[in-house]
Amino acid sequence: MPLPDSGPAIILSHPQLGENIGAAARAMKNFGLTDLRLIAPKVEWPNDRAQVLASGAGDILEGAQLYSDAPAALADFQLVLATTARGRDVVREILTPAEAAARLREAAAKGIRTALLFGGERAGLENDEISLCDALITIPTAQMSSLNLGQAVLLLGYEWLKSADATPPTRLRPHLGVPAQRQELIDLFDHLEKELETGGFFFPPAKKGAMVRNIRAMILKSGLTDQQARTIRGMIVALVRNKYRGQM
Amino acid sequence: MPLPDSGPAIILSHPQLGENIGAAARAMKNFGLTDLRLIAPKVEWPNDRAQVLASGAGDILEGAQLYSDAPAALADFQLVLATTARGRDVVREILTPAEAAARLREAAAKGIRTALLFGGERAGLENDEISLCDALITIPTAQMSSLNLGQAVLLLGYEWLKSADATPPTRLRPHLGVPAQRQELIDLFDHLEKELETGGFFFPPAKKGAMVRNIRAMILKSGLTDQQARTIRGMIVALVRNKYRGQM
Repeated sequence: MPLPDSGPAIILSHPQLGENIGAAARAMKNFGLTDLRLIAPKVEWPNDRAQVLASGAGDILEGAQLYSDAPAALADFQLVLATTARGRDVVREILTPAEAAARLREAAAKGIRTALLFGGERAGLENDEISLCDALITIPTAQMSSLNLGQAVLLLGYEWLKSADATPPTRLRPHLGVPAQRQELIDLFDHLEKELETGGFFFPPAKKGAMVRNIRAMILKSGLTDQQARTIRGMIVALVRNKYRGQM
Repeated sequence: MPLPDSGPAIILSHPQLGENIGAAARAMKNFGLTDLRLIAPKVEWPNDRAQVLASGAGDILEGAQLYSDAPAALADFQLVLATTARGRDVVREILTPAEAAARLREAAAKGIRTALLFGGERAGLENDEISLCDALITIPTAQMSSLNLGQAVLLLGYEWLKSADATPPTRLRPHLGVPAQRQELIDLFDHLEKELETGGFFFPPAKKGAMVRNIRAMILKSGLTDQQARTIRGMIVALVRNKYRGQM
């Protein structure tokens, strides 16, 4: 029985290169997929080149199941999406990888067994194979539309993981400090401005107000942590010390 | 001068395998990037294996520029993001690939020159190299966090293209028909129900209303095009003809 959030099976139809089967297995491991199926591979199986490229994903290769044709490989799935680079003259929805991932995720949450079908390196999927699938997926590209088989599996796996990934778009390592509180920044401003005043930095004096505002803006823009504010104050102390040393 | 929407340069630091440089070039071509730079490659250059893997992207390999170190390679960029799999003990924003692509796109629209920096296969980027970058990018993964160099370039290139890609999440080929108008569906219902009635399908007669509603729901769910509605009517005609033939 599939787990409620179990990912799609990856089904490679008539793959021609062991390298690509291995790369697909590795991409599956990268993104949390486990069920690999091969339809009539055109290379000997098991395959040495596949083993090399799979590196840490040897278990996925070993668990791969072989089928003679698409009807056999697809028999137990309830939602099947097929990847295709070329447009096909069939009335069929064409999904982006992200939309496909969203549908797979939604189906998986309902306990529906899903699969992604990929064609062989040279010819892609046959129309008969596509006729068994619910919808098509086309990966958007610029000039060259042909992606290698391993890369296509990688991108779909990536979108699958991403569709449930809670990583915020941007983050900081929390143990490395928190944004400085205003008082720490004000102390830094006071310290810096006092030493700059002593050093004769504010010239002509009439410009001092504008110069101070520019310096404060520059410091605020950098979004200092509490630790960084302390580091800068230490730097000021060291620079001032150098100055007196130079005079001695 | 870069074009207003020009993509980031792809900078590979100390790459070790010609195959990965070639795969990176190919991924760049797939997703519309052109400026490839290499920092002190650890393979002979130009490289035969890179040529083979680049296939249609030979022009990008030929245009690749070589640099001795990161400061030289990064000199003319205004926004530089570094990819890294491992966490780094530096106070630095960590972006998802999608967020990174959004920032690169926003910068490019302002004419800001941008770059993506990738580390070598074994050790990744050095801390000194990372210290020259504005923020980090980490690609979300499941168990195995290590992506091959070519794959990392592929995913970032994909997000770059996607960040300005107007492909709707789902679409149909417009020349293959438009959704059937209600009258065409009503004609189909009438035709089908009449022939089913003749064939004695509605039994017991008291259930006919519910049976008709189920059949109509099934047909509506399939979202027929005008052409498909006509095809089904043709199928009904053929089936009915067979029945009479069978009786003859």
